[in-house]
Amino acid sequence: MADDALFEFLHMEIVAHVYRDQQSMKGEADNKERSSRVSILEGMGYRVGQGLIERLTRDSPCFKDELDIMKFICKDFWTKVFRRQVDNLRTNHQDNKFNLLTQLSNGKQYLDQAPKYLAFSCGVVRGALSNLGLESVVTAEVSVMPSCKFQVVIQKL
Amino acid sequence: MADDALFEFLHMEIVAHVYRDQQSMKGEADNKERSSRVSILEGMGYRVGQGLIERLTRDSPCFKDELDIMKFICKDFWTKVFRRQVDNLRTNHQDNKFNLLTQLSNGKQYLDQAPKYLAFSCGVVRGALSNLGLESVVTAEVSVMPSCKFQVVIQKL
Repeated sequence: MADDALFEFLHMEIVAHVYRDQQSMKGEADNKERSSRVSILEGMGYRVGQGLIERLTRDSPCFKDELDIMKFICKDFWTKVFRRQVDNLRTNHQDNKFNLLTQLSNGKQYLDQAPKYLAFSCGVVRGALSNLGLESVVTAEVSVMPSCKFQVVIQKL
Repeated sequence: MADDALFEFLHMEIVAHVYRDQQSMKGEADNKERSSRVSILEGMGYRVGQGLIERLTRDSPCFKDELDIMKFICKDFWTKVFRRQVDNLRTNHQDNKFNLLTQLSNGKQYLDQAPKYLAFSCGVVRGALSNLGLESVVTAEVSVMPSCKFQVVIQKL
């Protein structure tokens, strides 16, 4: 199957599907519901990330250490999945034109809608790291669309 | 966003998500439920197909007639989306190794599972044709995995 657009459109559909029944809810139930919807999307991303990293590392040698893993995630994995390369190894990465946000209006008008379009991608990174033996918390922060800052915090065991 | 695998894994997740609550149901309600799940997936595909065809035809000249449209769908569209070219213009097309079925076990064991993995793709074709002004019914038939036969029937107005 081909074309970035295919993935992007499908991603929009999923977000819409997962959020469809939510609009009629209010108040506290709404907040709880909202976080569970984000979890659903994040969970999908997690399993997709696990699958992707298995394919991508199939022919790779073993990783030496945590730094080696982060290098692989920032270079090879990020480039393959998000079509961009992170040029340094800081665990937070600003992307000034994140693909999944480019279909939304620029600026601050729909800022409150951003989390649902980023949950899947955060899950992908967390799933990939998890399959390489690193438990992490991945978050994304948007101040102006379509710019987005990802932050990866590795959980020490 | 990149990589066929990303789309394929996401597609698997969606099918799983849409079908998750179904297993506890039985009997007649089950059948009704089953068809509504297929509709959800088909509907997603329909909207994705509409989006894709808008992008793909952005720079194309107008189509002369129905034959011209079918030629475009079978050549350009099919190649872009399903990475394969249909080499003739019959409206049914057999694909001996359909991408979205290759992750399932070959043979006849999981044949009853096939429809849920094809609903999205049928929707994509129907959505694309619809945006070009042709109402259609698109079905897919599997006799042995991962081979699959698509059939497009144009509805005459």
